[in-house]
Amino acid sequence: MTIRTGPVVVPAAVIKRLPMYYRYLQVLVEEGLERVSSRELSQLMGITSSQLRQDLSYFGEFGQQGYGYKVSELYQAICEILGIEKQYKTVLVGAGNLGRALINYQGFSRRGLNLKGIFDNNPSVIGENINGLTVCNVEGLKDYLLKEGIQIGVITTPASAAQSIADILIAGGVAGIWNFAPQHINAPENIIVENTHIGDGLLSLFFKMKHQERL
Amino acid sequence: MTIRTGPVVVPAAVIKRLPMYYRYLQVLVEEGLERVSSRELSQLMGITSSQLRQDLSYFGEFGQQGYGYKVSELYQAICEILGIEKQYKTVLVGAGNLGRALINYQGFSRRGLNLKGIFDNNPSVIGENINGLTVCNVEGLKDYLLKEGIQIGVITTPASAAQSIADILIAGGVAGIWNFAPQHINAPENIIVENTHIGDGLLSLFFKMKHQERL
Repeated sequence: MTIRTGPVVVPAAVIKRLPMYYRYLQVLVEEGLERVSSRELSQLMGITSSQLRQDLSYFGEFGQQGYGYKVSELYQAICEILGIEKQYKTVLVGAGNLGRALINYQGFSRRGLNLKGIFDNNPSVIGENINGLTVCNVEGLKDYLLKEGIQIGVITTPASAAQSIADILIAGGVAGIWNFAPQHINAPENIIVENTHIGDGLLSLFFKMKHQERL
Repeated sequence: MTIRTGPVVVPAAVIKRLPMYYRYLQVLVEEGLERVSSRELSQLMGITSSQLRQDLSYFGEFGQQGYGYKVSELYQAICEILGIEKQYKTVLVGAGNLGRALINYQGFSRRGLNLKGIFDNNPSVIGENINGLTVCNVEGLKDYLLKEGIQIGVITTPASAAQSIADILIAGGVAGIWNFAPQHINAPENIIVENTHIGDGLLSLFFKMKHQERL
């Protein structure tokens, strides 16, 4: 097994499937499975085995003809490809329901996210303890970012506050922003902005319900 | 402009982009824009204009050479294609943080989701009023589904409860399940299950931060 390190352009559709690979392999690791064929793995995930092999080929050489993949090795490789081993220092801004749901989400720390601080502007929330962290006043956000060397900012504020929070995160030196607010974030090119549109799944569901016969 | 009604198999990647079309067009409608060229629209969305035209071609004939698209017409067409006009009767099961975040999500009703009931098994939550609806005991879920003719069930329970809730939803006659629990749902083929993996965006962010030079 060799992970490619050179510069290869990876199609966006392949990148989008990596989290799925991670999730399925994690389950197989937990189930104690030692090896899996590309046919079994691809069936599990609802893609073709040639798709699976092609996707993985962007990142190196995995598996062996006739043997398949060592589950734990492939899982480790996917983790490394995704950058999960990094333990990024992170803050979350906006301790409403969605923010709390994320803070309590068990996959968070497991996926290499090291949540260091929670910020809000609501006086009735500031000072509250959520999952072992005290909610801080957003007024202190920039100083905190610079002092702690925070790398990722998660935005779970209302749409109206999202850009101003993003501006503070960027001024505070983060490299990545995970945005849940339904608001486009303007950021310099060197800042990675990942938008999660929580309502998109509903639209896919509607579509599939309406066009069931066409899928 | 003609919306195709016949049986055409639409690739999964195209279906995945429809919610993005919906979101961007909604903004343009709100901004009062009358028409948009395929080049402008595709640039806004970060895809090529040939991709845009090809995607839309699965659903009919839209736009005019040299004129582009009438924004409001294309928006209406996308709404119709997605099935947004339908006002599906819906219940949500699991009134924790994520459930509350969804209930308070403004796009919910706007997107044609008619939330009729909220269910939980926690005695300290049952009876609580959230956004005008009283949280009901999950023990009454099946009877309620059958009586009200509920079409969609949203699962925001812990993973351990997701399958048993799905079984009740299916027995109660829903046609679609929107699952947020990190748990695979087994369902008959005629039931549409849409899984939203809220943590996937984090993995994409990690990947892009690690491989910035390769994107």
